[in-house]
Amino acid sequence: MFDLVLSNVRVDRAITDVGISNGRIAAIAPGLDHTGAVVEDCDHALLLPGLVEAHTHLDKTLLGMDWVENTLGPEIREKIDNERQMKRVVGLDAARQSARQVVMSIAKGSTAIRSHVDIDTENGLADFEGVSATRSRYSDVIDIDIVAFPQSGLVSRKGTAELMDEALRQGADVVGGLDPCSIDHDPKGHLDLVFDLAVKHAKPIDIHLHEPGELGMFSFRMILERTRAHGLSGKVTVSHAFSLGANDYLGISRLLDEIAAAGVALMSTGPSMVPVPPLIRALDAGITVCSGTDGMRDLWAPFGNADMLERAQILSQRNNLSQDIEIERAVDVCTYGGAKVMGLADYGLAVGAFADLVVVAGRNVTEAVVTLPPRKLVLKRGRVVARDGQALVEAP
Amino acid sequence: MFDLVLSNVRVDRAITDVGISNGRIAAIAPGLDHTGAVVEDCDHALLLPGLVEAHTHLDKTLLGMDWVENTLGPEIREKIDNERQMKRVVGLDAARQSARQVVMSIAKGSTAIRSHVDIDTENGLADFEGVSATRSRYSDVIDIDIVAFPQSGLVSRKGTAELMDEALRQGADVVGGLDPCSIDHDPKGHLDLVFDLAVKHAKPIDIHLHEPGELGMFSFRMILERTRAHGLSGKVTVSHAFSLGANDYLGISRLLDEIAAAGVALMSTGPSMVPVPPLIRALDAGITVCSGTDGMRDLWAPFGNADMLERAQILSQRNNLSQDIEIERAVDVCTYGGAKVMGLADYGLAVGAFADLVVVAGRNVTEAVVTLPPRKLVLKRGRVVARDGQALVEAP
Repeated sequence: MFDLVLSNVRVDRAITDVGISNGRIAAIAPGLDHTGAVVEDCDHALLLPGLVEAHTHLDKTLLGMDWVENTLGPEIREKIDNERQMKRVVGLDAARQSARQVVMSIAKGSTAIRSHVDIDTENGLADFEGVSATRSRYSDVIDIDIVAFPQSGLVSRKGTAELMDEALRQGADVVGGLDPCSIDHDPKGHLDLVFDLAVKHAKPIDIHLHEPGELGMFSFRMILERTRAHGLSGKVTVSHAFSLGANDYLGISRLLDEIAAAGVALMSTGPSMVPVPPLIRALDAGITVCSGTDGMRDLWAPFGNADMLERAQILSQRNNLSQDIEIERAVDVCTYGGAKVMGLADYGLAVGAFADLVVVAGRNVTEAVVTLPPRKLVLKRGRVVARDGQALVEAP
Repeated sequence: MFDLVLSNVRVDRAITDVGISNGRIAAIAPGLDHTGAVVEDCDHALLLPGLVEAHTHLDKTLLGMDWVENTLGPEIREKIDNERQMKRVVGLDAARQSARQVVMSIAKGSTAIRSHVDIDTENGLADFEGVSATRSRYSDVIDIDIVAFPQSGLVSRKGTAELMDEALRQGADVVGGLDPCSIDHDPKGHLDLVFDLAVKHAKPIDIHLHEPGELGMFSFRMILERTRAHGLSGKVTVSHAFSLGANDYLGISRLLDEIAAAGVALMSTGPSMVPVPPLIRALDAGITVCSGTDGMRDLWAPFGNADMLERAQILSQRNNLSQDIEIERAVDVCTYGGAKVMGLADYGLAVGAFADLVVVAGRNVTEAVVTLPPRKLVLKRGRVVARDGQALVEAP
């Protein structure tokens, strides 16, 4: 007896049934007993574990608001300062906006999200509180991790560390940081604050590292030193890590080995305009890699749609993956890789795992990544939360 | 009196009506007389000129066929040889397959296509004949240019030049070429054959140039020499031109100026895994730039969906364009740039132009590029050929 049976669904390369009870996968086998169960005929569509959006900014999206024309230059600092000042001017309510993006994510098949949330001395904890409200509101349909993120600087903006400390007391899950050289101009000061907060609150770390080339490699090694010193293997993620895309084959190989040995994870969105970490080399070095859709339709840039299956396509194309088995590895990054980084328990396509699942048309994984059909079903703990591309929960 | 009126449609930044008679735009003004006209209420959607797919390979797609697992390495030569040998093995019928892709292009809003078509000594003119049949079949709903393309080599495969000559006699519109150093190992021999065929048949030229860095810059200059020598300004396009993405600011600036002066156009698809020509610098240098979706779901790689509006997004992201006015320039590349390269007469959003048009939801051009909604209407010579994302012509 199952609560729900997904019938005629494709798991790996076979058509089978999946029985779900009490929010978990109870059986995977053809011809399961349908008695008393709700049956969803999947018509040979593909079953994937819930997509994991491991890097986004729920507090920033302008989704559903008046259009804001973008006239900014390409400098990160200009984008940061503009955003900090304009958020309240354009009426960006973090609770409302994060809810809108969460509902879009659910429709696209994400069952877990790690979101960085800006904390600064101008807007205080307003964005953190807004995203926290959204996390509570949707807690039974999606997991949300909040990273306390000092977007505007930490050492260089006095009072920010105290706000981060307060956010962590109030339930932020992860300590954020960014570009310790280029934002604060004090890599030691910045990283010591980040690691001290992590140790104090016993929380993991996730650091944005946009710094390119040798500068980024320098900052990365300072992160590795502190990870080893504090015994934080498995607890630190470096996001973006553009420096790992540098054209220095031997230097990057050595650094990838050090990253693997230190137990530091990478997050790459596979952006096309900058160098990116070499995905297959990083995976082969034994590094856990996750991905995310990053900022969406925000004051930085207008793009984004919260689709982690499309992200597997973007990662594949960015890394010149065209073999089916390579593209399947990119999908693993967008599922299992994210689950490992977020520490999601009992995740995956296995009996006993939570029924956090996506059903999508496709003769195989690669075809689903190529064609990106609307998600047929999205399940959270065995409950249908989206169907035919539409979320069954409402956005404000 | 108009045959058709698009009412409440957004042209530039205003809501207006567009009256169409005898396949051409007859008036653009609010409150046009609807008497006797078919009226399409566009509900404030955006009007764009028909998208121009200026670089694809209609003869190659596997769309709608059995899945072929890709197990190839990243080398171009390996992909070329595999494809030439496997096309007939997997049953790739160029007439049927090109028709399938053309119908998908129409659904996505393309009103003109330039397709390279393989010509080699193994498959002869079979693919050319297949795509020619498709061109005839859909001649009243889309313009198709055929490039006679020596994919497997020209000098190094005796008999190919004669087949190209025959294809041009039978109606191929453009002389193709590729990588004169790395494929034929005889840049002078290759380019002399290409330019001689072009002069003999009075046809334009479109050369694939994947060669990177200094090698590609060398080949590019040999193309420029011949363009000037034969007086072919405005008649030569170089596709891909990855070498223009080299990290040599002054060298590339000089070459861009030479390209502009020679009247050579560029085609860039904005791929993420290789260096690409700098879009805005090329446009600012006065070069005509067009784009295309390139190979789709073929024996090289599984990706592609024939969407030239998505291509504007890809070009924007690859070139780090986030300002609205920059993204509008990427859309111009996918419309006016392609029209100029293809020599399409009376093209554009102006009274007197052919009514080759796309209507798509969006408060402005950038929003349409970001959200990529199904095309609401696609018109060819004033006739509705697609509606709500579905082509009104059939594929085999």
